[in-house]
Amino acid sequence: MSAVTATSTGRVAGVVNLTELPAAVDDVLDGFFQATAPILEAIYPTVGEAGDALRDFVMTGGKRVRPLFVFAGRQCAAAGPPLANGDKITLIETPDELRETLRVCAAIELIQACALVHDDILDRSDTRRQNPTVHRRFEAVHADRGWASDSGHYGDSAAILIGDMALAWADDLFHGAMPTPDAVADPPHRPIPFAASAVWSRMRTEVLAGQFLDITNEVSGDESLTAAERVMAYKTAAYTVARPLELGATLGGASPELCAELHGIGIDLGIAFQLRDDLLGVFGDPAETGKPSGDDLIAGKRTALLAVALDAASDADARLLRSSVGRPISDAELAAARDVLIRSGAVAEIERQIADRRDVGLARIDALDCPAAARADLTSMAHRVTSRNK
Amino acid sequence: MSAVTATSTGRVAGVVNLTELPAAVDDVLDGFFQATAPILEAIYPTVGEAGDALRDFVMTGGKRVRPLFVFAGRQCAAAGPPLANGDKITLIETPDELRETLRVCAAIELIQACALVHDDILDRSDTRRQNPTVHRRFEAVHADRGWASDSGHYGDSAAILIGDMALAWADDLFHGAMPTPDAVADPPHRPIPFAASAVWSRMRTEVLAGQFLDITNEVSGDESLTAAERVMAYKTAAYTVARPLELGATLGGASPELCAELHGIGIDLGIAFQLRDDLLGVFGDPAETGKPSGDDLIAGKRTALLAVALDAASDADARLLRSSVGRPISDAELAAARDVLIRSGAVAEIERQIADRRDVGLARIDALDCPAAARADLTSMAHRVTSRNK
Repeated sequence: MSAVTATSTGRVAGVVNLTELPAAVDDVLDGFFQATAPILEAIYPTVGEAGDALRDFVMTGGKRVRPLFVFAGRQCAAAGPPLANGDKITLIETPDELRETLRVCAAIELIQACALVHDDILDRSDTRRQNPTVHRRFEAVHADRGWASDSGHYGDSAAILIGDMALAWADDLFHGAMPTPDAVADPPHRPIPFAASAVWSRMRTEVLAGQFLDITNEVSGDESLTAAERVMAYKTAAYTVARPLELGATLGGASPELCAELHGIGIDLGIAFQLRDDLLGVFGDPAETGKPSGDDLIAGKRTALLAVALDAASDADARLLRSSVGRPISDAELAAARDVLIRSGAVAEIERQIADRRDVGLARIDALDCPAAARADLTSMAHRVTSRNK
Repeated sequence: MSAVTATSTGRVAGVVNLTELPAAVDDVLDGFFQATAPILEAIYPTVGEAGDALRDFVMTGGKRVRPLFVFAGRQCAAAGPPLANGDKITLIETPDELRETLRVCAAIELIQACALVHDDILDRSDTRRQNPTVHRRFEAVHADRGWASDSGHYGDSAAILIGDMALAWADDLFHGAMPTPDAVADPPHRPIPFAASAVWSRMRTEVLAGQFLDITNEVSGDESLTAAERVMAYKTAAYTVARPLELGATLGGASPELCAELHGIGIDLGIAFQLRDDLLGVFGDPAETGKPSGDDLIAGKRTALLAVALDAASDADARLLRSSVGRPISDAELAAARDVLIRSGAVAEIERQIADRRDVGLARIDALDCPAAARADLTSMAHRVTSRNK
């Protein structure tokens, strides 16, 4: 962890700031992949290739948004209530505590790796971060080597198992139990606090449930705002912001009240984040979003934007909009669908909701009983995830 | 846990024996599904159906072989070396300790649920334990409800996420961190010992690596005995016997030496178990195995039986055998392939290896410094997993 030079008395805020965090998390991930590579290689060389694919996927790109919120939550907990003797109990005082926080940050990136590798199978995506998706990578391996049977099915199968590996390894990192033979010789300085394990548990259930709901809404054509809101709440808001903040706070031994408040702030910001993403999914510039124009419409995503528009639009406009969902559309069809979203008032409504959620979140951050530096970091994250230029 | 009535002084061996264990594990699993059902249902009713499918899958059938080995390992640890003052430190003295052991037993069944649900996608299986596989169940849901897009792809997608849920929940059960809101109010009596977490970590990596190797060998046509042996060692022996035994022992605080010896015994028994399974996969009676005649040949499984036969057979016989692998075959073709396996000497060789591994394992069990009851249970498990009638 070359970027990290905590001393036994250094506060983490003085050692790693939000700008430096992604590199510090990458160092932990890199160390993990270096430690696991020989294990997989020893099992069999082709298994080593599975590990290489996961490493390449995790280490190439990714904004480390969830780790940033874990870290922000951990910093908030640094202002936990003083003990009766006046001591503060929740500072990151030692390199061990810093290592634990960074390990949890790395762990959550492996959850994200599982989610994306499996999502790419579900969405039949060919590329991710300008590279072939993991299932396409192994489809190509199969085809290039002239192996038997179906290349596409082998690619999917390999990617299912590699996603599973990421999910299992996420838990290993979270609990500090490496799959290396010498793991027992180098245990973490303490077991993860039970309160943090409980948040970790809820977070994983919520993101998987939200994802299940998302794919089901797409095919069932559930147009209700409730269904769209639940996907936002669980797949995005809880998983991307609320639980990571809470997770960081529980690592610092924060009170249940502070954890609950951070969770609430995270839901506000996370929903604003998703609503912004929904607008970008239809109106975003492909050069900036990295996705095709109108990607969400083509994919048939049941967003709040769509639900609000379908509810408010005239019958004719609703028909037009429905006809543009879940199939490839022309530029002219996309332009017509965008017009309906605007003239139904849905775009203005969603912008209003984003502003409301962001402003409520910002006010709640201001009111937190936390160090000013922690509040400032959280405020900057709030702006970052809700602005037009993420 | 109605089957369990541990007292604060009862040894676990007196409370739950191997015969009663599966029902006690089912009680824990049932309780877990009852606790998680309302959470999924509250997220959205369709998400509740995902939980129902996983519950049905886990609670319908399954021999709980891995829990039996966890329990057997835990019992062996009950004879850990006496302390200087003569006390034994590793008995299951309390209901809390028993609950922990049963929780870990239940956790490993959720790993198995993930493995099977995902395997069934990889193997394109239609049924499992006389029921539709999970991906076929959701394919049928999609078709029955007339949903949009591709029923098969929706079924696969749903089953990928449900397997992920099982894998995440396995870790929750292992660490005793339920995804329920009141989890923090009812924490486990202690964090899982780090030595047990390390075994848990290795076990999950090994089974996923072994499975990846298995599907890769099938398509690459790797005929080497080494490749087949590595699949046996990691996908079966480590995951089914060696690591569960070791896991149980680490829960009981067993010495590293006892853990290593149990792991070694587990590898012997686990390989014998897989070799037996390989024979049954070609020669087994469908009425007893629940699988079609010659299933392993049709699936193209690269077993040690096949590797030994290909190495020992005449060129003509090897060609005949190769032509029967990885495609549907007639009864006559199956009979011819069986003849090759027998006259090459491969069947006799594999039977010899099974007997050798079993006998070495039994001798090592006899030599364990463990209570007689623990050795007797382990001996009965050794016979069970290596015999012709499993």
